[in-house]
Formats: sequence, C-alpha cells, structure tokens
Amino acid sequence: MRATVIYGAGDVRVEDVADPKIKEPTDAVVRVVRSCICGSDLWPYASMPATEKGNRIGHEFLGIVEDTGSEVVTVKAGDLVVAPFVISDNTCQFCREGLQTSCEHGGGWGTNGVDGGQGEFVCSPLADGTLVKVPATRDDALLASLLTLSDVYCTGHHAATAARVDKRTTVTVIGDGAVGLCAVLAAKRLGAERIILMGRHTDRTDLGLEFGATEVVAERGDEGVEKVRERTAGAGTHIVLECVGTEPALEMALGLVRAGGTVSRVGAPQYQAAPLTRQQFMRNVTLTGGVAPARHYIDQLLPEILDGTLQPGKVFDRTIGINEVPAGYQAMADRKALKVAIAFG
Amino acid sequence: MRATVIYGAGDVRVEDVADPKIKEPTDAVVRVVRSCICGSDLWPYASMPATEKGNRIGHEFLGIVEDTGSEVVTVKAGDLVVAPFVISDNTCQFCREGLQTSCEHGGGWGTNGVDGGQGEFVCSPLADGTLVKVPATRDDALLASLLTLSDVYCTGHHAATAARVDKRTTVTVIGDGAVGLCAVLAAKRLGAERIILMGRHTDRTDLGLEFGATEVVAERGDEGVEKVRERTAGAGTHIVLECVGTEPALEMALGLVRAGGTVSRVGAPQYQAAPLTRQQFMRNVTLTGGVAPARHYIDQLLPEILDGTLQPGKVFDRTIGINEVPAGYQAMADRKALKVAIAFG
Repeated sequence: MRATVIYGAGDVRVEDVADPKIKEPTDAVVRVVRSCICGSDLWPYASMPATEKGNRIGHEFLGIVEDTGSEVVTVKAGDLVVAPFVISDNTCQFCREGLQTSCEHGGGWGTNGVDGGQGEFVCSPLADGTLVKVPATRDDALLASLLTLSDVYCTGHHAATAARVDKRTTVTVIGDGAVGLCAVLAAKRLGAERIILMGRHTDRTDLGLEFGATEVVAERGDEGVEKVRERTAGAGTHIVLECVGTEPALEMALGLVRAGGTVSRVGAPQYQAAPLTRQQFMRNVTLTGGVAPARHYIDQLLPEILDGTLQPGKVFDRTIGINEVPAGYQAMADRKALKVAIAFG
Repeated sequence: MRATVIYGAGDVRVEDVADPKIKEPTDAVVRVVRSCICGSDLWPYASMPATEKGNRIGHEFLGIVEDTGSEVVTVKAGDLVVAPFVISDNTCQFCREGLQTSCEHGGGWGTNGVDGGQGEFVCSPLADGTLVKVPATRDDALLASLLTLSDVYCTGHHAATAARVDKRTTVTVIGDGAVGLCAVLAAKRLGAERIILMGRHTDRTDLGLEFGATEVVAERGDEGVEKVRERTAGAGTHIVLECVGTEPALEMALGLVRAGGTVSRVGAPQYQAAPLTRQQFMRNVTLTGGVAPARHYIDQLLPEILDGTLQPGKVFDRTIGINEVPAGYQAMADRKALKVAIAFG
C-alpha cells in the first residue's frame, strides 16, 4: 500500500509500506476513502529536523472498515467510518466527561507505531471508542463535509462551545484557515448574530461570509484590534475564537475581547505563556479552549451534514491523489490551497 | 472626623480630616458603622513608596446614610447600606451585564479624590448605582456578615460562579485568607460536595472546615500538587479557586486542576503572564475569574445572611476602633489576625 512519510522539514514522500493487519482484538483496519492535510501538519513540514527513518503522518480520514478484531462491536466490515484526530477508548473517566483528547488509553495517529491517516489503509486501535459509523455515501460533497468531522469542523465547534457562544454573544473569529472558517460556521449554528471574521485572503473570507460571518476585518495587530473596537463602540466582542495559535494572534484576541468576555483558543499554541496581565484580571477576561475532543461532537454535528443544511466540506479547495501529497503540502504551505483533500481508489 | 491615611510602606496613620459633603446630586454621605482591612490593603502596606501627602485608604464598609444629593432615589437618610468595593452607576452596558467592576463611569474608594472607607464618614459617588440598602440592625455578628458583602464573600462567590461550581464538580481552594474561606463557603453553597482547602494556618483551615471544606492540604508547591492528585486518583479537581494572587499559587492551581477543568483566579495577580503552556492547551484547562463585581452579587447573597443560614462574618477575628487601625494593619501583615474589622461609634 501507499502511504505518506515525512522525513523532515519540506521532505514529505509517498512510499510503499506494509499493509496493516489486526494486532489487537480491539483494532479495525480501514480502507481510506478520503484523507486530508491539516494546517497543523505544516508545523513539522516547516521545522521538523531531518530523520533517516521518517514518520507516518496524517490524522484526518474516513473510510470503509475492512476487518475488525474479535472484540470490536460498534463497527463492522463494510461500514463507512469517520476517524477523529485522536484515538480514545470512549469509556474512561475523561471520555465520559466528553474529553476524549485526555483519554487514559488514547493516543495519536502516526505516532508510537500507529499508522498515519494519509495512506491507503489504516489500522485503528480502540476501534469501538474511536471510529464513528456514518451512513454510506459516494457523494463527493458529502464525503468532504463528513471528513471535516475528523478535525476542523469539530475544532471550530469546540472553540465556539468552550466559549459558550449563543445568540446574545458577539463573536470575532481570528484566522481564515479551515478551522477559522469552521468556527464561523459553528458560531452561526449556535446562534451568534454578529460574527466578525479577521483574515486577509478574500477567497477564504468570502467563504467565511457564506458560512455566516457578518463582516470581515483584514487588518492585524494593533490596527486589527482598533478596527474591531471601532465597530463595537469601543468595547470589543464578547467572544474571540482564536484559530491561529501564534502569540500575535493571542495578543490580538486579548486586545479585542470585551470586558467580561472569553478568548477561546484552538490553534495549537506556538508560545509558552499567555499575557494574562493584571489588566485582563481587572477586565475579567477568560481564556478557554484547547485541543478539540472531536469524538465527543461528531454525533451532534452529523445530522445537519447529512441533510445538507451545513456544508463545512467547502473548506476543501483542492482534491489530489495519494501520489500528489508532497505537492499538496507545498500548496498549503504556500497558501495556494486552503485545505487539500486526498481521494483514494 | 477621623480617617485612615497611608503614607507609604508600613506607615498607616489615623488623622483628622474634613467632614465629607455632598458635591454632586448623585452623592450620598454615609456615617460608617463597620469598616475593615483587606488583604489587598497589605500590598501598599508592604511596598508603597513613601509620600508626603498620603492617600486615603479602605474599600469595604457599611454605614448609615446621613445625607443624599438631589438625584439620589434608592437610598435615603437613616438607611443602612453596604458599599461594594467598586463604585458603579449600575446602568451602563457593562453594569447591565453584571460586570459593575468595568462600569464606564465607575471608580474606586480612596482614589481620584474619593474618600477611603476606613474613616468615620464617606461621601459615595453614584450612590444609587453603588450602595445597597439592607435591613437595619445592631447585631454585631450580622453586621460582620453584611460587611463581607463589600468584598470578601462576593469575591469568593465570584471565583466559584465564574468557574461554574456545582454539585458535579470537585473543588480545590488555594489560600486560607478571608477570600479563600469565603470561596469555600460559596462553593459549598453552590453544591460542591468535595472541597479541598489548601492552607497552613490551622485556626483558619478549621474555619474552612466549618464553612464546608471536606479536607485540608497544608503542603504547597509541587508537594501540594502531589497531595491533591493523590487524593483524586491522580486526576486533580475539576475546579481550582485561586485566592492568593502569586505566581506560585497560580502554578500550583494549573498543576492540580483536572484535564478539562477550570482555574478561577480572584487574588489580585502579582505576575505579568500566566504559564498556559501547550500542555495546558492539550489538557483543555480554562483560566477565568478576575476582580469581583460585588454589586452584582449582593442581592442574591443577602437572604442567607439575613436569616443566619450563612455567616461569612466569622472571617473577622479581631475588631478594633478607628485609632487602632495602624496596629490592625500590622497584625494582619504579621498573620496574627485573619481579618480585622473596624467598629465606629
């Protein structure tokens, strides 16, 4: 089978690797139908030290179950399943609280001997806890939207729910990447009537407007803070969904959140400490968010995808075959593609 | 009239000052019945640069209204009123959201020409927005509990409500000062069934146990984190109420909060940035809290004080006259007194 292996910064290869097999009775082997490249895959693509052996990579995919271990009961051969970007047993104390990303027995794709998601087949550990069965379909648009349940749509939704977005809250979304755009969709779904999207790529912010943003601010830094404050009578918005992960993005979020408001961060943080100064204490600013427990959200987000009400799959603006994956990484790194899907078979 | 003036670190004096008079039609003059010294008064008492003129000080008091400006309608001469530690109009956009500490027209006691609360009389600006009428009483214990509505009980309550304490959440309270003990009381009132109090002064932690703490941990730092984790199957508690304000206290809070949990800080922060690292992001830890909008909480906390169900006034372990205020500061600074009340007349 063909699978993606990253050897270091800028060095992504597609190689022949051994077909996966059931090792544990809780495993399932999945034939991947759609996978994709994540904004977070661009971090190792930018900075991973060169290695001889390489690492399997990819953590978002859906596919058809090919084989299951003897203890697997919730999915069976032939089922179409979505894989959340974190493996979980869905039964431990943290899973029961809806925090499958802190599962006591969980793990990640492409690490510790687990297959990466950017390949033809994947052996899923803890298949009952991890994989979510969805209705079979060959509809491209529907497959694309289902694929966002692996990560980006659930991550945007996590930002919004952690911050408790509702119809009474004004919202700013920082970042016009796939997660930012999905955060717009999620905030709109939760009832927010005013959603300011901060981003500089008009093709992306146009999709943000389609997803429910009511206005776009292209400025960044202090200028961005000022623009949002101008539009909100000086006060800022109740909620800021920080979907980038850099320190400047967090500083902007803290600068434009309203007193008593909440900054919810879902961009993997590229900083060590948050400038939650005495000023933010006096303003009663809350910082929430974190890595999204996609597994917890899939069931509740699924119906509106299945009935076509919401189409988060529109974040994919390019679909490639497995052998084009290296070019796909480069296109995303160059900001020539918003989010690249990989179609198999 | 006699009032407290601070001239610098360790230099608190009680002096004759001019009686306050109504200056604005929204003012009220209050004859102070009870005032007190706050843990936060100890910061300038420890480090304020020496001055020639001195500053009036004190921000917690209750008293009898003596006179009101022509526009004041909610309180009148003879009413017993509680003064929250922040002045507010109670009508601006932030006050309407329950965040009177961010009032667009508000301010503080003892600053910008406003009287401090540790004196015989105080002129309150924005009397309708700021002062809260309570039933007349001469009962010492009841006056003490009513006085905690100025600050410490509302601040403890703010910590607990910002963190959304309820019967399903396990709680750790860091700090056995008056705010920490009030946070215990507030967490118990909100239904928490398990409350771990971290403190080293047994006379204080004994009161914490009376207020509802289910256990006490005396250790601090990494050892404190380890003790709490030991008692919670390694996971920590859902909520940590950080009632100290130092960086070590915050670090301890972040170290012992459960994945998916919340640290709520109400101790005035003596640090510039919060170590909300990638690890805390992966653990989905929320940081909330801030300066407490006492004005917002007084009405809801009042009934259980009036009927004697809750007695936060027990945090006062010493009552002095106005002329003993300098000794009162020293007793609190030396940790010989938990919280000092000042009785007038």
